[in-house]
Amino acid sequence: MSASERPSEDSLIARFFAPIAGEGALGLKDDAARLTPKPGHDLILTTDALVARVHFLPEDSPGSIARKALGVNVSDLAAKGADPAGFLLSLALPDDWTEDWLADFADGLGQASHDFSCPLLGGDTVKARGPLTLSVTAVGQVPTGRMVQRTTAQVGDLICVTGTIGDAALGLKLRSAPAWSESLSPDEKAHLADRYLHPRPRHQLAATLRDHASAAMDVSDGLAGDLAKMMMASGVSALVEADQVPLSAAAAEAVQASSELFDLALTGGDDYEILCTVPQKSLDSFRQEADRIGISLSVIGRVVAGHDRPVFRMNGLERRYDVGSYQHF
Amino acid sequence: MSASERPSEDSLIARFFAPIAGEGALGLKDDAARLTPKPGHDLILTTDALVARVHFLPEDSPGSIARKALGVNVSDLAAKGADPAGFLLSLALPDDWTEDWLADFADGLGQASHDFSCPLLGGDTVKARGPLTLSVTAVGQVPTGRMVQRTTAQVGDLICVTGTIGDAALGLKLRSAPAWSESLSPDEKAHLADRYLHPRPRHQLAATLRDHASAAMDVSDGLAGDLAKMMMASGVSALVEADQVPLSAAAAEAVQASSELFDLALTGGDDYEILCTVPQKSLDSFRQEADRIGISLSVIGRVVAGHDRPVFRMNGLERRYDVGSYQHF
Repeated sequence: MSASERPSEDSLIARFFAPIAGEGALGLKDDAARLTPKPGHDLILTTDALVARVHFLPEDSPGSIARKALGVNVSDLAAKGADPAGFLLSLALPDDWTEDWLADFADGLGQASHDFSCPLLGGDTVKARGPLTLSVTAVGQVPTGRMVQRTTAQVGDLICVTGTIGDAALGLKLRSAPAWSESLSPDEKAHLADRYLHPRPRHQLAATLRDHASAAMDVSDGLAGDLAKMMMASGVSALVEADQVPLSAAAAEAVQASSELFDLALTGGDDYEILCTVPQKSLDSFRQEADRIGISLSVIGRVVAGHDRPVFRMNGLERRYDVGSYQHF
Repeated sequence: MSASERPSEDSLIARFFAPIAGEGALGLKDDAARLTPKPGHDLILTTDALVARVHFLPEDSPGSIARKALGVNVSDLAAKGADPAGFLLSLALPDDWTEDWLADFADGLGQASHDFSCPLLGGDTVKARGPLTLSVTAVGQVPTGRMVQRTTAQVGDLICVTGTIGDAALGLKLRSAPAWSESLSPDEKAHLADRYLHPRPRHQLAATLRDHASAAMDVSDGLAGDLAKMMMASGVSALVEADQVPLSAAAAEAVQASSELFDLALTGGDDYEILCTVPQKSLDSFRQEADRIGISLSVIGRVVAGHDRPVFRMNGLERRYDVGSYQHF
């Protein structure tokens, strides 16, 4: 389609995005969206950008890209104990976008918005002579003063993590067909690939986190680094039993085949699980609630005094991971 | 600076953005920001992305780019009658960014944030192998149910516009040193250039708009097109006296030198003035309030029944402008 035949931004919005928008979006026909906050609640706001070849691969399906862009933001809300209230999307399209691509993208976005209970409120679509870039701003709500922060872990608290760790990093690695992948069954490979493509934000755990966690964040840049960040922000340190870090059957199989993959699992990123600290006395009721929702919970260590990087104990050895080296600009 | 010597995203945030952040940003150390809404208020949310070579020129000063990115969003809030409450920034940096550039950018952003009473709440910084792309999401507040919409203009209302129209479009044109620019004084040229670089959002008019306007939007894509959008969204049409459209002395001089520039002024975009409709009986008090704030107000026409594009009357002729042809994708 030549540039002159391309539809206007307004017609794109009306065709693809207005049908999936929430009530506060006012049909995406105004300059801005409206959100009436629940009385007695704080708003929680987060924004995360995704760039092609950095955060996803251009050949990923448009629906997967949309789901990931929203999912990583809803994951941030969940970690703060916030229930999703809506999101805005900023979409910078490369020159070679097609209407089919955009239709599939909007379809996936609408589905993810429904699955995460997070309605589309507004957005902006621009052209950019560069990689596809998406920026989502998500808004959540917590009862006033109940945001779960990163800075409030207490010495003696237990360190918990939801689901399994390392799947997404292994799923990304799998794309280059490494030797260890031959040890995995097709189902195991599919599981890891899917975990990279489709974050599963733990928004259903938000209320339980508010009730039980002393501090929380989501695991997006690798468990070891994110734990170090949360401990540093809280002015404490941590002792982790590395063999308690939950691995999926597929990840365990991969680590069995190639033991250095365990480090990748701990440092690799894109997990979008919840990492939180919980007072010892709250653990039982926290676990009961998580069970009820169907989210598995693992205790991997405890908060200790100090300012050093967390220690990971494994086979009688102690190990500290470098922090932040993977996220240089 | 080689990639391996580049600071981490966390250190960039701590050095450049944390010092200019507002209270709800929690020092930019958490996954998300917190905003306690005023009781009895709705939140108004808007997002606008800016791309180098589309919305600004890469050689523009970093402070100007920052000011524009925030200004165009605050302008949307103002048009909805919303008082700014804060913003989030998503910044996709090209490969060749420098720390000097980022320091100047943050400096300009902090200044604009102060000038527009709109604190930085959070953000995300990513690398992208493409043009510099900024996406700002701004949040404002209005008393519950008092958002000024685009869809509520009434037949018989007067059509008003703040400030002057066309300066920014002429300021952009000026960069290619057209023949007509020789008719302008250095001060006049500087005025037009500045209007393109530095939008002046009318956030101080927000409360007055809530009290007096029946409908409003900001003029970002050209007066003629934006008026057509607002009239269409309201199911009405408009009759505009083109000679009542307010021009600055510089713009008037340019139009004098080259009469076809008048069309550019009406269609060119980037004005970031408020276009609104006001019931006849409210005009006097609306104007008094605007005068008190120091914002000039011009009545340029009135809302009429019908569904055609607005008519611009000029020298006994009537003209309808094409709408949207300038914003094809």
